[in-house]
Order: sequence, then structure tokens, then C-alpha cells
Amino acid sequence: MTDTDTDDARLVELYQDFERLHLQGLWTQAADLMPKVPSPKAVPWIWHAADLLPIADRCGELITIERGGERRAIALANPGLGGRPYATPTIWGALQHLGPHESAPAHRHMANAVRFVLDGEGVWTTVDGDACDMEPGDLVLTPAWTFHDHANTTDSPMRWFDGLDLPLSNYLDVIFYENHPDLAQPVEDRNRSEQQWATAGVQVRGATRSAHGSPLLRYRWDQTDAALAAATADSPSATIDFVDPSTGGPPLATLGCSMTRMLAGTSLPPSRRVGSSIVVVFRGRGHSTLNGERVGWGPFDMIAVPSWCEVSHSADEDTDLFVIDDAPVIKALGFGRPPTGPAAVDGENDR
Amino acid sequence: MTDTDTDDARLVELYQDFERLHLQGLWTQAADLMPKVPSPKAVPWIWHAADLLPIADRCGELITIERGGERRAIALANPGLGGRPYATPTIWGALQHLGPHESAPAHRHMANAVRFVLDGEGVWTTVDGDACDMEPGDLVLTPAWTFHDHANTTDSPMRWFDGLDLPLSNYLDVIFYENHPDLAQPVEDRNRSEQQWATAGVQVRGATRSAHGSPLLRYRWDQTDAALAAATADSPSATIDFVDPSTGGPPLATLGCSMTRMLAGTSLPPSRRVGSSIVVVFRGRGHSTLNGERVGWGPFDMIAVPSWCEVSHSADEDTDLFVIDDAPVIKALGFGRPPTGPAAVDGENDR
Amino acid sequence: MTDTDTDDARLVELYQDFERLHLQGLWTQAADLMPKVPSPKAVPWIWHAADLLPIADRCGELITIERGGERRAIALANPGLGGRPYATPTIWGALQHLGPHESAPAHRHMANAVRFVLDGEGVWTTVDGDACDMEPGDLVLTPAWTFHDHANTTDSPMRWFDGLDLPLSNYLDVIFYENHPDLAQPVEDRNRSEQQWATAGVQVRGATRSAHGSPLLRYRWDQTDAALAAATADSPSATIDFVDPSTGGPPLATLGCSMTRMLAGTSLPPSRRVGSSIVVVFRGRGHSTLNGERVGWGPFDMIAVPSWCEVSHSADEDTDLFVIDDAPVIKALGFGRPPTGPAAVDGENDR
Amino acid sequence: MTDTDTDDARLVELYQDFERLHLQGLWTQAADLMPKVPSPKAVPWIWHAADLLPIADRCGELITIERGGERRAIALANPGLGGRPYATPTIWGALQHLGPHESAPAHRHMANAVRFVLDGEGVWTTVDGDACDMEPGDLVLTPAWTFHDHANTTDSPMRWFDGLDLPLSNYLDVIFYENHPDLAQPVEDRNRSEQQWATAGVQVRGATRSAHGSPLLRYRWDQTDAALAAATADSPSATIDFVDPSTGGPPLATLGCSMTRMLAGTSLPPSRRVGSSIVVVFRGRGHSTLNGERVGWGPFDMIAVPSWCEVSHSADEDTDLFVIDDAPVIKALGFGRPPTGPAAVDGENDR
Repeated sequence: MTDTDTDDARLVELYQDFERLHLQGLWTQAADLMPKVPSPKAVPWIWHAADLLPIADRCGELITIERGGERRAIALANPGLGGRPYATPTIWGALQHLGPHESAPAHRHMANAVRFVLDGEGVWTTVDGDACDMEPGDLVLTPAWTFHDHANTTDSPMRWFDGLDLPLSNYLDVIFYENHPDLAQPVEDRNRSEQQWATAGVQVRGATRSAHGSPLLRYRWDQTDAALAAATADSPSATIDFVDPSTGGPPLATLGCSMTRMLAGTSLPPSRRVGSSIVVVFRGRGHSTLNGERVGWGPFDMIAVPSWCEVSHSADEDTDLFVIDDAPVIKALGFGRPPTGPAAVDGENDR
Repeated sequence: MTDTDTDDARLVELYQDFERLHLQGLWTQAADLMPKVPSPKAVPWIWHAADLLPIADRCGELITIERGGERRAIALANPGLGGRPYATPTIWGALQHLGPHESAPAHRHMANAVRFVLDGEGVWTTVDGDACDMEPGDLVLTPAWTFHDHANTTDSPMRWFDGLDLPLSNYLDVIFYENHPDLAQPVEDRNRSEQQWATAGVQVRGATRSAHGSPLLRYRWDQTDAALAAATADSPSATIDFVDPSTGGPPLATLGCSMTRMLAGTSLPPSRRVGSSIVVVFRGRGHSTLNGERVGWGPFDMIAVPSWCEVSHSADEDTDLFVIDDAPVIKALGFGRPPTGPAAVDGENDR
Repeated sequence: MTDTDTDDARLVELYQDFERLHLQGLWTQAADLMPKVPSPKAVPWIWHAADLLPIADRCGELITIERGGERRAIALANPGLGGRPYATPTIWGALQHLGPHESAPAHRHMANAVRFVLDGEGVWTTVDGDACDMEPGDLVLTPAWTFHDHANTTDSPMRWFDGLDLPLSNYLDVIFYENHPDLAQPVEDRNRSEQQWATAGVQVRGATRSAHGSPLLRYRWDQTDAALAAATADSPSATIDFVDPSTGGPPLATLGCSMTRMLAGTSLPPSRRVGSSIVVVFRGRGHSTLNGERVGWGPFDMIAVPSWCEVSHSADEDTDLFVIDDAPVIKALGFGRPPTGPAAVDGENDR
Repeated sequence: MTDTDTDDARLVELYQDFERLHLQGLWTQAADLMPKVPSPKAVPWIWHAADLLPIADRCGELITIERGGERRAIALANPGLGGRPYATPTIWGALQHLGPHESAPAHRHMANAVRFVLDGEGVWTTVDGDACDMEPGDLVLTPAWTFHDHANTTDSPMRWFDGLDLPLSNYLDVIFYENHPDLAQPVEDRNRSEQQWATAGVQVRGATRSAHGSPLLRYRWDQTDAALAAATADSPSATIDFVDPSTGGPPLATLGCSMTRMLAGTSLPPSRRVGSSIVVVFRGRGHSTLNGERVGWGPFDMIAVPSWCEVSHSADEDTDLFVIDDAPVIKALGFGRPPTGPAAVDGENDR
């Protein structure tokens, strides 16, 4: 028996002991753990409204909203993420369908959430006693640990995009969850957060503040639309960031939200950033190229963009893209692209 | 055929379409995704030095350190985490063994790292040109994107605990990695960070700062020991936090480090916090109770403590426990225990 | 000659030497320098519009606006401050009169300034190229080191209140001053700051920011009025603070601005705060008690309130009081009322 | 009578009304209020130890320390400041003389203070119960609203430099003052702040913090000296800033402190900054040029440097210059030199 044979045998024995003792050698995994650039398991993916909306209708007929199930939310499950209901590693994206005269029961959890309304009317979300009306294009926040429930008083359904940091908060093992004693919490006020916080540059002394995010809970579409119209008056495209008006920071500690308007015929150059996002087409038609692959899109299509994915957008019609991202997490933890790292495709990508 | 049969058939069909279209219903997963309190997959676990050290010796004989493998680091793999080399969801813990006259090659990555020296001498870690000497009990930082390599000029090995945010940075898809052109980077200075930053309350104007963490790269054991001795002069136990002297904040954006001294006979009451940690026994003997299960420990034993795990410690001998945790992440993202959430076992646990 | 005589003679000689050598003994001045509570030299004072407005008209006829004089600003000179043109130690308050078809030349300085419009129309202030329209009730900012000039294109004068940190910046010896090469700087945009910053919770990516204060330069009266109307819908009085929408902080680093609406018949309880302010009556009639002395007021009256002055207000008609204060300075320097200091008259006074 | 005569008469009448109504025209004062660059009333000035020390001895014989007078502090009165005991507009500088077996009574005030020890031994300052030993070269802080008293148990006097923000806090009308019920407050601990805060990079969990400045109250000369020695090992001069170890910020909200070591033969190029300072020569001999005027200096000489004064230093012997400045005020209020303002003499002057 040669020395090498002996060594081989000892190595086999060593790795058996590794397994028995719950140990692993870095040297066998370094390349996988430490890629030269981010190499997400999540893949770029598009879910088409043509698929999603009929599914939502069928759910509306077949699935009842009740305690335990809580919400008729149809989650985007990125094919790269092993069957978990996560659009990206950090962001949950879902189409939520609230049928006529339905309510979704009141609860709270440490996951932060946003709702971006696609269509419908006559619905409100009550957040810690404040009933926030929802109209198409509105962005409604339910920050961590706020009680929230949704009520539809009309004969038609409402559909919205749900964005949560659920994958992140679940990964970090920080979730607490609590049902409200009542199915619907008492409504103390209507659109109070708007009365107190929706005038730019003005704060009502003594206004309600939030422990976990923006005190402004509803960002009305008409105001977003007007801001985008002004910003595209002399530019073919513009992006607005939704912010916490009490700090100028992100609306939630873990989630950034923005809206990009592109006039028909506009193309945005390829860019990439560290961290992931979901694009929800609110209005318009066009196509995007994600790591070299082209996908066409129209209203209510939803696109998962993994970290460091090269992405470009082109608009055939006047288009509004709602984007939710984990940029606040990347920034808070100092994980933006290293200054001497690989050149970005486009400069404006590491906010 | 009854209505219910029809509905059942339609449901089956619906869920088939869910799978085909990469969708999932929240209602089938809500309880799992949103537990009432954090319910980690990671389990409390102890790795005993009696197992670890002989394994390290065998690795020293059988495993060569070279480009590609990079480090002889033996990672703690939490049995609850499905075979991945992670002690907790966010923290990599490993025993690193650097043999006599060995060097570990220079590289850099976006993962933040600390080294806590267990035994050995005559070793230094060069961090962006600054050779930092390492002695038992020292804490040495290699912040994100700093080039670092380790050199042992003696006839004996050195062993240290490696703590990295690798599971977190890998999860977030933020890792960039680069080898230094040379196996060993040029040494420009020796212990420069200590000369510039190791006098409390004093900053040398023009001193080197760091983009990703503390500019002080080495926390000497003799100073830690003296601070703990003073703090336990009239108290049976005390904890010191290692901080960035330029900000008073955590030493790295993602990792907290502390040392708890317990005099013989001291017990600390049960406590729990949101977020995970690894305890490394540096000195002393005693036992801990983790979620009701008692484990005994001695020098160089390592314990994984998952989020919200109830833990208490008792020291039979004078004991020093080094702890690395993800508290800066939990705090930066606003994910501490909700104020109206379940009562903690002990008040002082949510820093 | 006794010892005491000798000592007296030596003391005389000592104090002569003090004077010769530019020295002074603390023991002779301690009580004056360190009062038990703030003892301002500035006195509470009211300037009545009945005096101010005719004076402004006379100035309009007799004083020309030109380079060197720069502005037809009639400064409030607190009788306690030794003849200097300061309403309080830190705040300059003035009535500025811009006649028909007049312009005030473009310049910049390190003093921060606000303009609160009393009456008139068709005037704008250009701030670093952005022409900001001014209407009664508007608050217009000219942050430190921004070029600004005022233009009146109508046949009527406009009158506004000027609030500057000039006494403070002069005291600190930080003033730099520069004339613009032209009497009127070029207008690049009209109300650009409003287009970019006047939608609450929304930031246009790439919008102009300011080095020395809020990027929103004009706070329109109609929005202020609406916010106050909402806030007094179920409360007889309310106060809104003007803030920098990019940070939620004060509009200028040294000056806070607010507006208090009191419905007819409302009285606010006595309060005091550390730091000084000027109250400008925009609308309504009533009276105030300042350190026990009662003064009646009506539109455009201006009141200086020194530090720690006890003040209460009562409104006989629906009233809007514009207030400018140095609260940001007091807060930034940690000089608020000590927690164990003398009890305040009213709790809500140390923001 | 001509029109001009009429106008003249009306102008005279106008200005009489101005005076009667406590008003003033900006146009008559603009140039004075808004100089092109800072134009302090304070003048550069030096107080020589050869004058100061004998005066202090005479005061030691003639002036008793007692309640009311409180301290035997001989204040530097800048000749440009109209006879007030202020070295600069913002900073009080004084030589304090504490005789053998004397105590200075316990009090507190909202003015922040530092003590820089010149000579003597066996003295301590008690700050909120913590007796801080004082040795030559030590910097001892008494932050706003901390009770403090000084005790000398030896047969020799101690002399130190007193630096306070008294002119600033007096100007802002923020001073509260309170005598301790006892002449000497009870001593609870000795050098506690050093035990808790004097290890760089280490914080004792639960350590005493301060509401108004650094929790480290004593900066020992031996550590300052060692840091300066290291910093001048390969450079002929170096400056260290004293900082709050809990934040890395200034030791007090209003006062910066630093020490510059210049080896014999070193000259520092001319520089200027916005804001004022006092230089105290601790060790060495040399000369400075202040706005073109040269002054020679030796140990314990004290120099007032007004805002924007051009200053250069040359050391004939190895020299240590202690500097106290108002840089934290200038920075907090955003009043540093404007980026497009007049060129500085030397780049490194606007920290």
C-alpha cells in the first residue's frame, strides 16, 4: 500500500468524521460560496397577466378568505429558488384578489408590506385604526407590526400587487405574528395619515408616527402621476422614489419603491445593481432584456430581477413601471458594489 | 357528480396550474411563513474542542493551503440547516488551522470577517498592507473588500475562530471576490491601525479609515482582559462590546462582537434575543441551558444560538465567553422584538 | 498701615494689572455670566403694523434699492440689544417693501434667510436660477450661499417678512458675501423646486438638492392653509412645522418655521422654551401675555420672544401666527432646558 | 424750498421715526453686517505666561475661593471684544489657580467646560460623583449640567487652563445654573470614566453615559503623549483630536480639542478656518504669525485666534500646542467656508 493510498484512506475517514461531527471544509466550497460576482440562484423571470389574472379569478371562486389562510394572495415563486414562494431571495411578490363584499381578517406581523393597486375601487386597508382608501395606482404601506385588514364594499373585485420582505424576515428568523381579536379592527379615522403627512414640507405637530416605516400610509396615484408628468415634461423618462416624508429615507426599512415613466419610444440603457427587485408593469407595453434574454410585456405583468442581472427596458407605448427592491437592505449593511469591483454596465445603478 | 366533486377537481387543476406557472397560494403556507414567534430551522448546537482540535490536526497533515481552496477553515454546519456550512442562518463559524511556516493566500471579498485567536503565536494577518500581529485572545478584523492574508513564521500552528457574515452575504447575492495578484500582499506597515486608533478618545488627524468597518483592525487581548478585570472588580460578571472607535458603532456593519467574563460560581439568568449568535469559550468551564437542554463546556468549545432561543450560562471556573452575533443587522433593519410582542425571559437582551 | 490696607492696595494694583494685561476675574462676574435661568438682554417687544406699514410706504418713496444698500428691509431692533438691528440675539426680522416694477439685486451670503409674504402679487424670488413665485402666505427660502434676487413686475408693492440668522452668523464670524455679476441672475426655471419636491413622499431621482437647507424653496400658502384646515377640523388649534422634505429636519440648519392656527376664542396655555423667536401675525386678532405683560395684536404685527420668556396667546378671531425660531441651533448644540432644571410652564415647549 | 430739501427733511423725519419705533434700515448697515469675508471684532492676541503666572500667584494670595465667586479663574479678555471676559466670541479661556488645600465649590451649569492641566499634582475634579485625578497634560471634561468641584490636597497649587463655551451659551441665553447643596459633592468613584471608557474599541455594557458630551471625562497625558510620539515617528508634526469614544464625535457638542506636536525646526504652512480658537502652549518654544504679525511664545502662553485669521506656527524646540476651538458649532450649523468662497491659504483647515 503506497503513501498516497494511505492518505486517500485517511482523507475518506476525515470527511466521514466531518459529516458525523457536523463540520465542513471551506476548501471544498470556496468557489461556490465566494463567486467573483454575485451569482444568484434566483433567475430573471416574468409572470404574464394573461396567466395571472384568470388564475386569480379562479381562486376567487374556489378559495375562501378566512382565519388561518388570511389572504387570497397568489405568490410568484422564482423557478431558481427551489419551490419556495419567493420572487427573489428577499422579496415576496403576489397578486392579491379581494372579491366583492369580502374582507381579509386583521392581523400583524414583523414582515413589512406594500400594496400597489392594479384595478378595482371601493376598497380600503385599515392600518392601526386608520382606514386608507385604495384606488388603482395607489401605494399603501403596512409597516411591520401594524394591524391591518382589507375591506371591499363593492360588487367587483379589487386586485393589487403585494410586496413583502417575507423571505428576508423569515430567513433572519425575526417574524412575530398576531391575529387581531376581531376579524375587522375598529376604524378610528379615514385617511388620517394623508391629512397629517401628505403636504410636502409640512409636519403637523403631534402627528402619528410609525415605529417601523413611513407615517404616510397611502401614496395617491393622482399625485404620483402629476409628479411623473412634471418630471417627463422635458425628459423622455423619469423615476420617482417613494420616501418616508418624515425622514426622506425609504418608505420601509427593508423595501424601496419607485415608479419609472417611459414615454413611447424610449429605451433605458442596460444597468445592473447589487440586490434584487420586482418590476410590475402598471401601464403600457414594451420589452426588457434580462441577462441577454428578451421578454415582452404589458399591463400587470410582473418581472423578477435578481442581483447583478443586466437589465434594459424599452417602451412601445407610454409606460409606467412600478419597482420594489431591497436597496435599503443593501445600503444599510454596506453591501453595495465595491468601488474597485467589476465595472457596472451603467453608472446610475447603486443608489 | 356533486358540486363538491367538481370543486375538488377544479382545485386540483388550479394547483396544477400554480405549479406550471410558478405560483403558490399564501393560504397554504401562512402558518409556516408567519410563526407566532421566531421558529428557526437552525438548532442550538455545541461543537466540542475535544472533537474539533484533533480534526484540525488531521487537516493540518492532509489538507494543503493553496489558491482555490484558500484557507484551512473547518466550518461549523448547523444540523438544522440542511447540510450547508453555516453555524446560523447569518453567521459562518469555523476553526482555522494555520500550520508552521504556512501562509494563506491574499484575497478579498464582500463578506465581512473577524478572527478570534485561540492559541499559537508569531502569526500576523496583513489587511490592506497593515500587518496585524495575532496573539491568543486577540480579535482581528478583515472588513469587506480588504485584501488579507495570514502568515505563520513559527514552528507551531496557530488556531483561531473565524466568524464571517458569509451566509448572509451569500443569501443576499452581494458577494464579489478577487484574488490578490500575489500570494502575499506587500507589508507596508506593522500594527498601523493600533498606532492610529488604539488610544481611547484620541484620533490621529489623517489616520487611515475604512469603507466597511472599524479602522482599528486588532483588539489586543491584554486590553480586553484589563477592561474585563476592571469591570468585574465589583461585579461577578461583565460584558464588553467591541466597537468601531471612530463611531462607537459595531466593528463591522453586519457583525457584533463581545466578551463576557463570569467569575467562578456565577450564573446568568435565561435570556433570549431576536437574531442568532455563536459563543466561543475562550477560558473556563461551565454549562449552558439552551431551550431547556443542558450542555457542559470548556475551552474552545463553540455553541450556535439560534434566534429567540432561551439561553442561560453558569460558570464553574472563571470564564471568558467570546460572542459573535448579527445584532447590527437586526437593528439596522428594525427587526428587534416588537414592543408589544411576547415577553422576553430577561430584559437586557435586545441591544 | 494695617494688613487690610496693604491688601486693599495690592488688590487695587492687581485689578489695574488685570486691565493692563487684558484679564478679568471670574469671581467678579460669575453671577452675571451664569444666571440661575436664562436672563436675556433682549426684551419681549411688539412692533405694530399700524406703525410699520406707513413707515414702509415712506421708505418706498424715499429709499432707492441699489447695489450697496441691496434691499429695502426695515429691521426690528430689540430695545434690549443696544441699538443693533436684531429682533432677538439670533434672529433678524424685517419688513421688506418691494415697490412696483422694482428689483432687488442678486447676491449671496452665508446667512440663511426666509421670506414670509404678507401682501402683494406678481413677484418672484430667483434662487440659484429657479424663479419662485411669491403669493401672500407663501414661505420662500434662500438658503446660505444661494444667489437670490427679487423682481416685482406689477404696479403694486409687495411686502414680506424677512427672517435671517444674521445676528447669529455675524456673531460667529462666518459671513461671506458676494454680489452676482448681474443685477438680476438668469432665470433657468420657474418653480422647479416645487415640481421636484412638492409632492409629499415622492422624490424625483436626480432632483436638485441644496448644500445648506431644504431643496423645496417655496411652501405655498394654499397647501399650508389646507393642512391647517385639516388639523383644526377636530381641534381648536394646531401647529404645523415647515420641514426639509428631503430629511424631515428643519428647513434651514439654523432656523425653524411654523404656523399656528387658533380658531376664534381659543387660548393657548403659557409656555416657555430655551431660545428665541419672532411671531408674525398673518391673519386674525387677539392678544398675548409675555412675562406677565399683555399686548393686543392684529394682522402683520410682529412680536419678539426672548429665551425663556413665558408666553401665552389668545385669539379673538380665527388667527394664523407664523413663527420663526432658533430651535434648530439650540437642539444641534444640546442646549435645551436641562431635564432637572426649573419646571417649564407647559410641557410641550422644548422641541 | 427744492424737492431735494423736502426729501432731505422727510428722510430726517423718517430716521427719527425709525429710532422712536425701534427700527433700522438694512441699507445703512449692509456692508458692516455682510462683509465679503469674516471680519471679526476679536483680534489675534497673545497672553504671555510671564505675565499670567505672577498674576495667578498674586490672586492666590489675595482672592479667596468661596460660594458666589466660585473659582479663581483669570479670564483672557480679547481687546477687540469691548471689555468682556471672552478670549474669542465663542470661547472663554482662563488660567485657573487652585491653592494648596483649597477646594472650589460644587455647582453645575449649561455651559460646557474643559480643563487642561498645566502644572501641579494631587488634585482631582469630581464630575457627577466620579473623582477624576488631574496631572499635567491631562484634559478633563465637565460637560453641561454635570456637578463639578475641584479639590487640592497638597501643599502646592495646581494651575490649569479653563476652556468654556460660556460666551456662546451666554449669547444664546441658554444658561441655567445651580449650586450643589454641599460645597463638595460626595465622591462615589475614582476615575470611573477611565475604567469604563479608556480602552479603545471597547465599551463596557451598562457603562455610564453622558447627556451632553463624552462619557470619558479624563484624557491622560501619558496616553496623549504616546499617541503623539507614534504619530511623529515618521513625520515632523502631527495632530490628534480628542473625541467622544462613544461616538467618534467632538468631546463636547460645542468645543473641539486637539494637540499638535511639532518637532524642533518644524514649520506649519499658513492656514485659516471659519471659527475661532485658543492655542495653549504646553511645551516648547517657537513663534507664530497671525495675520502677518509675528509673536514668539513659550510654555503656558495662550493665543486667541479669531475666525478666518491666517496663522502659521514654527517650533524652535520640540513643541506641544493644545488647541480648543468652536469647530463643532461651525460644522453643526453648516457654516464652514463656502465651497466657491475665497481660496483658503492651506487646504486642511475646514474640518
